[in-house]
Amino acid sequence: MMNIVSLLTDFGLKDGNVGVMKGVIWSIAPQVQISDLSHLIQPQNVREAALILLRSAPYFPPGTVHVVVVDPGVGTARRPIAARLGEQYFVGPDNGVITLWLERVESQGEKAQFVHLDRPEFWLAEVSHVFHGRDIFAPVGGHLAAGVPLESLGSLIDDPLRLDLPIPMRSEGGWRGEVIHLDHFGNISTNIRQEHLKQDQVATVRLCGVNIDGMAHTFGERPPGELVALIGSTGNLIVSVVNGSAFQRLDAKVGDPVEVRLV
Amino acid sequence: MMNIVSLLTDFGLKDGNVGVMKGVIWSIAPQVQISDLSHLIQPQNVREAALILLRSAPYFPPGTVHVVVVDPGVGTARRPIAARLGEQYFVGPDNGVITLWLERVESQGEKAQFVHLDRPEFWLAEVSHVFHGRDIFAPVGGHLAAGVPLESLGSLIDDPLRLDLPIPMRSEGGWRGEVIHLDHFGNISTNIRQEHLKQDQVATVRLCGVNIDGMAHTFGERPPGELVALIGSTGNLIVSVVNGSAFQRLDAKVGDPVEVRLV
Amino acid sequence: MMNIVSLLTDFGLKDGNVGVMKGVIWSIAPQVQISDLSHLIQPQNVREAALILLRSAPYFPPGTVHVVVVDPGVGTARRPIAARLGEQYFVGPDNGVITLWLERVESQGEKAQFVHLDRPEFWLAEVSHVFHGRDIFAPVGGHLAAGVPLESLGSLIDDPLRLDLPIPMRSEGGWRGEVIHLDHFGNISTNIRQEHLKQDQVATVRLCGVNIDGMAHTFGERPPGELVALIGSTGNLIVSVVNGSAFQRLDAKVGDPVEVRLV
Repeated sequence: MMNIVSLLTDFGLKDGNVGVMKGVIWSIAPQVQISDLSHLIQPQNVREAALILLRSAPYFPPGTVHVVVVDPGVGTARRPIAARLGEQYFVGPDNGVITLWLERVESQGEKAQFVHLDRPEFWLAEVSHVFHGRDIFAPVGGHLAAGVPLESLGSLIDDPLRLDLPIPMRSEGGWRGEVIHLDHFGNISTNIRQEHLKQDQVATVRLCGVNIDGMAHTFGERPPGELVALIGSTGNLIVSVVNGSAFQRLDAKVGDPVEVRLV
Repeated sequence: MMNIVSLLTDFGLKDGNVGVMKGVIWSIAPQVQISDLSHLIQPQNVREAALILLRSAPYFPPGTVHVVVVDPGVGTARRPIAARLGEQYFVGPDNGVITLWLERVESQGEKAQFVHLDRPEFWLAEVSHVFHGRDIFAPVGGHLAAGVPLESLGSLIDDPLRLDLPIPMRSEGGWRGEVIHLDHFGNISTNIRQEHLKQDQVATVRLCGVNIDGMAHTFGERPPGELVALIGSTGNLIVSVVNGSAFQRLDAKVGDPVEVRLV
Repeated sequence: MMNIVSLLTDFGLKDGNVGVMKGVIWSIAPQVQISDLSHLIQPQNVREAALILLRSAPYFPPGTVHVVVVDPGVGTARRPIAARLGEQYFVGPDNGVITLWLERVESQGEKAQFVHLDRPEFWLAEVSHVFHGRDIFAPVGGHLAAGVPLESLGSLIDDPLRLDLPIPMRSEGGWRGEVIHLDHFGNISTNIRQEHLKQDQVATVRLCGVNIDGMAHTFGERPPGELVALIGSTGNLIVSVVNGSAFQRLDAKVGDPVEVRLV
């Protein structure tokens, strides 16, 4: 069996910390495949990591171990945890980063199981106060990928921290939501989802003082430079500039309000 | 057999999209090795990707599958294609990104064969309008790496799109070309090649209003800060500042003219 | 056996050069696992690479091959070398980047052995003047990972270049050191180590005109925005802003002096 470990952190790419985690994992599980998910999460931004995790996990095979370390509380009493979420695994600090993924797992009737990582025999021999990604989470991820059962790694718990995340609200003429992510291409993602909208019914999308009429199906059907609203690859309503940056054009920020008016 | 998949995109590194493609590939072909080539291609810049692909493919072993997704036309009628180019494979949108590599393959008398990816059974079950890298190209790349024959993935075609790329022209005293790439170190690459020049015959290289006398063999033979012309690792004429950035010094841009005067 | 190769360079991530090195390595050793350590070393900054290598190597398993290419002297007479350092391997230009790691190996009574890479049969057939990472160091790394003995790759030497690196000095009231690294989170690392300090004895840490009283154990025990001194994950004294950037706050630079006053 060739399991996969994915790594999602705010460690950046210049200091070698991600490579060190791979060294630790391969010391325990030399055959495992390791995929970087992102290491450019905004420092300490657990919500952004929660969103990337939600979008990514469904595309990995059963047995994948996602090690997610965005950890403003490193060295404090926040618990290190691991979980089985449906057919995959999570390892990281108990900071709510699993909230969105856990909601999906629950909504699909799949099982979730959590353990408090309280068995140091599965960690590195020395644990620093400031780099649990290397000292606790990478080795636990390696042991999981090598086949150690979740239940062996710690004591069962049933109260993982959940983030209180903004959800779209019905308004008089449609939906009111907010900006949740700005991507590499300059697309603005909102928390309004395709389930909220029937595509032919959207009259306007309003954000940052601008009204966009109707929805496009894809970027390529409109001329370069045009501002469009469409359903993105994750099923969220996004606002884009064709071959350009919508967030620069509109000076959008995470948390900005978005209004959809239906016909 | 342990095949290799390389990934070349303009997706950036922060949003998890590259990791998702790896999850899709390993779901199909768990043993495959995956190498990032670059994910920092300038958004929608197919020419830059064509150049990186030309420079990189020769250093990968036979059977390697290069998945190249720089896709301004995603969701429009542009075809998804795959190809055998010599002993390696290409998967991506039919946007001309294979032009330079295909020219080399043809000039070496090797075979090239193209298919239109029109068999959805080799794609993900759901295909979005905006992320064919994940939904079409990653799974097709996985199937190719797993040993599915090219011909099974789609209908044969013989008219892949080719870019019309600038080629150097003879001038009265030498060659006239242009800037085609600015690299991480600040080196300026041109489309003038070592085949065009006999090194001992170059009198001056002129670009951005500056004349550089003669050619160096390597960076280390000149003092730091000096502006030099030399043959780069890809056989192209490049202009560099020793231990510095030539494109910052000269404010060079892709497309700027370059003149070589021969003795 | 599934050996590991780590790659540490200043090549950046946009030009495909790192991917090309992986293609070369897998052409020779198709089963090898490859980890990026960093490719964002400041161009030509051998000291920074030496520090990252020192911090990373101990977390990789025996047999790992670290290919380290920060090479201001490429194409000049500087030697290409390889080494066994304890139970791991190094491949790269002879520029002193192994200094800190070698000092540790020696202080632990482990063996170190060096060879001058003077056998072109282990290189690519064509060697450019400007990209030895691809043409010499990647293939040699691949051969080492594939099991070729170090001694076969070149002639034994015993005089690898060592950098003359600043070491902390005793001052009247404590220690005087300097800033050696600024990391992705904005932490300022110094060359003063936990061995120099008894944590309960530190009265103040002074740098960039600011005094910090005492030491913290970890980030999480202090309020966001507070400036703290603590022992980092590598055993060095670091200065941080909780959930913020210390080097931006203090405008710190590598080489700035740091004074520790003991009680």
